[in-house]
Amino acid sequence: MAWDFETDPEYQAKLDWADAFVREEVEPLDHAWPHLQFVPLDGGRRKAIDPLKQRVREQGLWATHLGPDLGGQGYGQLQLALLNEILGRSSWAPIVFGCQAPDTGNAEIIAHYGTPDQKKQYLQPLLDGECFSSYSMTEPQAGADPTQFTTSAVRDGDHWIINGYKYFSSNAKTASFLIVMVVTNPDVSAYKGMSMFLVPTDTPGVIIERNVGLFGEPMDEGTHALIHYDNVRVPDSALLGGGEGQAFAVAQTRLGGGRIHHAMRTIGLAQRAIDMMCERVLSRETAGSRLADKQFIQGYIADSYAQLTQFRLFVLNTAWKIDKYNDYKKVRKDIATAKVIMPTVLHDIAWRAMQVHGALGVTNEMPFLTMVHGAAVMGLADGPTEVHKVTVAKQVLRDHRATDDLWPTEWIPRKEAAAKAKYAEYLELEVGNL
Amino acid sequence: MAWDFETDPEYQAKLDWADAFVREEVEPLDHAWPHLQFVPLDGGRRKAIDPLKQRVREQGLWATHLGPDLGGQGYGQLQLALLNEILGRSSWAPIVFGCQAPDTGNAEIIAHYGTPDQKKQYLQPLLDGECFSSYSMTEPQAGADPTQFTTSAVRDGDHWIINGYKYFSSNAKTASFLIVMVVTNPDVSAYKGMSMFLVPTDTPGVIIERNVGLFGEPMDEGTHALIHYDNVRVPDSALLGGGEGQAFAVAQTRLGGGRIHHAMRTIGLAQRAIDMMCERVLSRETAGSRLADKQFIQGYIADSYAQLTQFRLFVLNTAWKIDKYNDYKKVRKDIATAKVIMPTVLHDIAWRAMQVHGALGVTNEMPFLTMVHGAAVMGLADGPTEVHKVTVAKQVLRDHRATDDLWPTEWIPRKEAAAKAKYAEYLELEVGNL
Amino acid sequence: MAWDFETDPEYQAKLDWADAFVREEVEPLDHAWPHLQFVPLDGGRRKAIDPLKQRVREQGLWATHLGPDLGGQGYGQLQLALLNEILGRSSWAPIVFGCQAPDTGNAEIIAHYGTPDQKKQYLQPLLDGECFSSYSMTEPQAGADPTQFTTSAVRDGDHWIINGYKYFSSNAKTASFLIVMVVTNPDVSAYKGMSMFLVPTDTPGVIIERNVGLFGEPMDEGTHALIHYDNVRVPDSALLGGGEGQAFAVAQTRLGGGRIHHAMRTIGLAQRAIDMMCERVLSRETAGSRLADKQFIQGYIADSYAQLTQFRLFVLNTAWKIDKYNDYKKVRKDIATAKVIMPTVLHDIAWRAMQVHGALGVTNEMPFLTMVHGAAVMGLADGPTEVHKVTVAKQVLRDHRATDDLWPTEWIPRKEAAAKAKYAEYLELEVGNL
Amino acid sequence: MAWDFETDPEYQAKLDWADAFVREEVEPLDHAWPHLQFVPLDGGRRKAIDPLKQRVREQGLWATHLGPDLGGQGYGQLQLALLNEILGRSSWAPIVFGCQAPDTGNAEIIAHYGTPDQKKQYLQPLLDGECFSSYSMTEPQAGADPTQFTTSAVRDGDHWIINGYKYFSSNAKTASFLIVMVVTNPDVSAYKGMSMFLVPTDTPGVIIERNVGLFGEPMDEGTHALIHYDNVRVPDSALLGGGEGQAFAVAQTRLGGGRIHHAMRTIGLAQRAIDMMCERVLSRETAGSRLADKQFIQGYIADSYAQLTQFRLFVLNTAWKIDKYNDYKKVRKDIATAKVIMPTVLHDIAWRAMQVHGALGVTNEMPFLTMVHGAAVMGLADGPTEVHKVTVAKQVLRDHRATDDLWPTEWIPRKEAAAKAKYAEYLELEVGNL
Repeated sequence: MAWDFETDPEYQAKLDWADAFVREEVEPLDHAWPHLQFVPLDGGRRKAIDPLKQRVREQGLWATHLGPDLGGQGYGQLQLALLNEILGRSSWAPIVFGCQAPDTGNAEIIAHYGTPDQKKQYLQPLLDGECFSSYSMTEPQAGADPTQFTTSAVRDGDHWIINGYKYFSSNAKTASFLIVMVVTNPDVSAYKGMSMFLVPTDTPGVIIERNVGLFGEPMDEGTHALIHYDNVRVPDSALLGGGEGQAFAVAQTRLGGGRIHHAMRTIGLAQRAIDMMCERVLSRETAGSRLADKQFIQGYIADSYAQLTQFRLFVLNTAWKIDKYNDYKKVRKDIATAKVIMPTVLHDIAWRAMQVHGALGVTNEMPFLTMVHGAAVMGLADGPTEVHKVTVAKQVLRDHRATDDLWPTEWIPRKEAAAKAKYAEYLELEVGNL
Repeated sequence: MAWDFETDPEYQAKLDWADAFVREEVEPLDHAWPHLQFVPLDGGRRKAIDPLKQRVREQGLWATHLGPDLGGQGYGQLQLALLNEILGRSSWAPIVFGCQAPDTGNAEIIAHYGTPDQKKQYLQPLLDGECFSSYSMTEPQAGADPTQFTTSAVRDGDHWIINGYKYFSSNAKTASFLIVMVVTNPDVSAYKGMSMFLVPTDTPGVIIERNVGLFGEPMDEGTHALIHYDNVRVPDSALLGGGEGQAFAVAQTRLGGGRIHHAMRTIGLAQRAIDMMCERVLSRETAGSRLADKQFIQGYIADSYAQLTQFRLFVLNTAWKIDKYNDYKKVRKDIATAKVIMPTVLHDIAWRAMQVHGALGVTNEMPFLTMVHGAAVMGLADGPTEVHKVTVAKQVLRDHRATDDLWPTEWIPRKEAAAKAKYAEYLELEVGNL
Repeated sequence: MAWDFETDPEYQAKLDWADAFVREEVEPLDHAWPHLQFVPLDGGRRKAIDPLKQRVREQGLWATHLGPDLGGQGYGQLQLALLNEILGRSSWAPIVFGCQAPDTGNAEIIAHYGTPDQKKQYLQPLLDGECFSSYSMTEPQAGADPTQFTTSAVRDGDHWIINGYKYFSSNAKTASFLIVMVVTNPDVSAYKGMSMFLVPTDTPGVIIERNVGLFGEPMDEGTHALIHYDNVRVPDSALLGGGEGQAFAVAQTRLGGGRIHHAMRTIGLAQRAIDMMCERVLSRETAGSRLADKQFIQGYIADSYAQLTQFRLFVLNTAWKIDKYNDYKKVRKDIATAKVIMPTVLHDIAWRAMQVHGALGVTNEMPFLTMVHGAAVMGLADGPTEVHKVTVAKQVLRDHRATDDLWPTEWIPRKEAAAKAKYAEYLELEVGNL
Repeated sequence: MAWDFETDPEYQAKLDWADAFVREEVEPLDHAWPHLQFVPLDGGRRKAIDPLKQRVREQGLWATHLGPDLGGQGYGQLQLALLNEILGRSSWAPIVFGCQAPDTGNAEIIAHYGTPDQKKQYLQPLLDGECFSSYSMTEPQAGADPTQFTTSAVRDGDHWIINGYKYFSSNAKTASFLIVMVVTNPDVSAYKGMSMFLVPTDTPGVIIERNVGLFGEPMDEGTHALIHYDNVRVPDSALLGGGEGQAFAVAQTRLGGGRIHHAMRTIGLAQRAIDMMCERVLSRETAGSRLADKQFIQGYIADSYAQLTQFRLFVLNTAWKIDKYNDYKKVRKDIATAKVIMPTVLHDIAWRAMQVHGALGVTNEMPFLTMVHGAAVMGLADGPTEVHKVTVAKQVLRDHRATDDLWPTEWIPRKEAAAKAKYAEYLELEVGNL
């Protein structure tokens, strides 16, 4: 009934199954087919992966966060959090468990706002993991500020003509369709004048100018596209959210869950870094003692444990609040806080784990700099840390009031005077005694 | 049944009562009788404070952590944690609620190890808040390392003669008795050769050489005594723990709870600093906008909220584990971790709150530097942060194993080879497709 | 002729003399007459201190930064920096060497802007260390932002009537006169409508409402006054800077040097903390080895050495620039940077030194928390760190330009294309070879 | 004659030339021939690069740190530091200026310890940049601790047979020869029993097991070789340092300069990151104002300027000391300190610069994560940061002494008593006056 920090045994058994399954069956996919998670299944990959997905479904762990109407279990965010800790160890795991970003967020949008036709065309294949989607929002000149977007759609009969550039449209290269945010009415504020369209990637005029890669990837072979929408013609029925001007309402829906999912997986990833750090320092000696016996190293471990354990409880608490309140306003502060903390937790732990591995740690034979890099991406994707810090502060400040007085409420001279007045009769007695 | 982050309504009602009661009745005591918490009640203070204690008893919140046999409620650590958050706002509150350190820890020792006579003489008045006690352990040359203690007791018939110096014996000045840790057998290891004595402060030979004060207090008027035990003669019956050589077993008992209690109160104190920070930044303008609208300030608030909320969940989780496992071995890691984190949380938040108050913040008219100072004390009392970091690391490492292999378990070339072997038949299919 | 990091032998000999003199003769004053630096000399203090000042004059080290016309040596800032490192160890030393803040800054103002009469009345006694002065600028509601000051002076014939409150007027309690910044024309911008007055502290209507103390000082016995200017009547001749509206020009003059002087003394203070830390860790054993042999401690020492040595070079470089350019615009960036770094350097080093002293470190028997507190004051006095960070950034940005291009100048695809074009003929050759 | 922070005009003119030359001619090489710096010149690269080297020679800037006997200018470390700041912007620049690591260090060894035959065979081509060398020291099981090396050479007539594994032998893939550190006498301490051999890479038995890459590079295409020395037979004349057992003496020679060279180039690289950060924040708007006008961003700039400027002065001071003292013992502390600081400076500045570039910052189209990665490598190459911290601490502690007293030298009660005794006669006078 109150304060419990344990998972019920039944679900814990499922988590234990998932843990073993990911280690044995899914992690090897990362090495067998790296970077192919978002390429539709075919050939050998289909033969390898379809049976794995089937086993997940049999365990009732497919797309657990979705309601039964969408093929999931309706387990909510807390249970997804616990599962995601396990999935976070492997880049293929979210695919195999039907909960990979950005498709989950995109599916939520379509489930919530889509017309029956839109659902039929896009939702089911997405939920089945048979196609992929791209959220085409950021523009090259605009960063995280939608009020500066210039890509526009102009009505042309019962169609719209989209023109402009979108940057960092992840997975566009292999996606079946794009969700594009555009200006449809430049005469009103961005919050009212922007609309969201569903655009098949093979629509004429959708031109991938460059497949931008992350650091370390070959030039133009990355998965974050710079897209030129060059007179892209789409019908009215491509509008999402029941009409023009709904982009912000639609986008809002998408943000909450997705951000916390990243945090959940980050916990698993950071735990893996701690595991590697611990194995290493127990296995190596230098200057006459094990690394594990040196205070610098012990400090790394203690700090890593403290950071990660605190963050994990915070994320679980946030997931619990999302489930409990089902109200974005009540969890916005904590979702933003998790977003702020997350990159630092992963960065710091991965960096320490790398450091204790010596030269091996910085090579392509260990995953530490992939994690550091991932932390950098996390500090920017879905809005930079700085923007989320402002959000946290504003939300915290909502619960406080200014004072009209020249001095603060807690100003000691005033409190002292009040206390002495309150207890005056007893203070007088005391004076005699001292 | 699983994962719950809420207090049950019945206890929440008690907490709400405590919150209002502390703000209205107890906080003023800090200003009316500062620094007199550990002076036995007398005169006006008794008239003021006895009724307050009575109200606490009526609410069933007196010494809640103690079992009913000791006059408490047996609520355990989690509920004490929630209460202590409230008590942490006031230095008098623990006294009024019957749970002040070090007396709680000392009472636990006597309850656990005391003979009937010892309990009669020392325990009940301590539990009633009618007398105070001092834990006389650290020595001036020895820091936190008991193996370096030299204060000794030598048997003399059915008595013992204690000689040596003890440092930082808190509250000795006003305590009725001291719990003294001394060497009784220098020929065996410290872990076997040390004993614990109960020594009334008025025993001949107990000489307070200096009442060491914290920073800001007048010289020689502090509460942390340097005590010279100069041929102090005590009977056999003063031995604690059923005989000679029991000092470490006795001390161990005392450590767990006390450390987490400090953490609980720190949360309340740090929250108060955040409250003050928020009021201030909403109330002040500079360079054309409110402090609350400036990013540096927003960063302070976001960072403070993140630090404190994470730490609070960690401490509550630790308290829950203490209650659940009742096994020091299973909670030692988390108790040490809380001890490591605590000073930094309070320091950082108090420092930021001070900073936003400008010049007022560093004066004696606001409590921020008291908090910073308190953080410094927390980083040393009950063992320095460095020692607890080592403990955390050792405990974390217990759950890990070394590898005998030259390369780590997670070495990518080996994992890649294994993955390619595992999925070989499918990879061959794939090759044809690419 | 270029790049030299050494002091010439002649001046080094003077520094060596000062170092021994401060340790032997001046530091004891801190313990003999603590907190009396700014009380005009009298009785025993005069007998003790006048001869010390005389010895300083005989060495040619009295007020070295001032020109010969003001009784100094005209040594400039670099040489003062080197001297101030030594003086920073003692709170009495600046008094004994004729260079204590805020009097040095105030003297500079009067020397620069004072009329002959003003100089006669105020400057010479100030330069001689026979009287003290207070800079009465900050207001309780306004923090560091002069545009929010409301204390005003209204003309009344050939006099002015000053009304308002000033906060944190340091040394006002014992000063002979105040330099007060007030609004004289509310109809223009603050930068044009404020004036500076010289006001003897015994002028009727100058009421010290409270002598605000720093943390640890007894209430109302501090040296930072809250002053009520209650119809204070001063003649036209009290105006500083040749007329009304000159306050900002006058204030500007004062800021540069003073800020860097604090930095210089901070170096000496922080070095003293390092010295204490090193002595301690060489003198103490715990858990079987010296503190000096433990990595956590070694980390504290290495980090402290790195922080302080870098900061020292930065401050000396800034002092050198002030001497070289004699142009506030060219050194503003570095003066602000030194102001930003200074509190952190002192805080961090003092905190580590405190930590290695164990319980003794947080008592009033060691100076560490005085240093930490001093760091807090440094982060606020002469403008908070946040304001100076903005200044640094703005000054750094002056040397850079925006790009009109969508992509940065250093955008790799463009640079790559340019490079390949530039070296096209050779690249073609290469292709054949690979 | 003392304290000068300026470069003499003549050398400044050379630096200005170098700055323009690197930007215009050398930086494009990074894009035209990335990753080919250590492949001997051939074809187009020779045609492109030989003339550039010639222009450097004509300016007298070729291998400036080497003495004229080795074809350099004998300018010393300070002038090299100033030059290296410029070269640090480009990965090809050290090659073009004849001062690339590890060849410079290796050349210094051979120049110092080589026999005439060794010099003839290896030194001149190395100095001319016509061949490359690899320092083959670290072993896969041993990290930075040479006492754990097991690769050995056993005498066989007038030859030696080398067996074992060496890890992270940089540039071995393209080097002409290896400098290998091996155990020749396992019966004495490592400091006496290890020897250094010059081994041509084409010697039978030198087997590159794997070309380990840094993060982001394709597997087995990196430049840090894992080498199997499999019965490698070399003649006596391959011994370096005049005989067996000289490895530590030889290695010591190599360490000083090289470490500081990295620091120098790091300054140039970090300055480039600041330049990019400044351009970006002046060029972008979000939420209604330029990034440059937001406090978070201003904080990044101020912190970066403070970090880099302090570090730069520290490195220049260290270089000046190397030149002045020519004694490794006197500069060891500062060389180690620079090594400790360097990775953090580059990491922090590159990370902030990346962050202000938004999504673009983490792509392969901007160099920020290359810099972060470089910082990680710097924290491990030539010994991990932790080892150098210990060195710094030990060196700092050499200048301090333990106290035999129970209380520290600066213990206030003792100092107070001494001060009061010293000034007793004046204190008595004072008492009457107060």
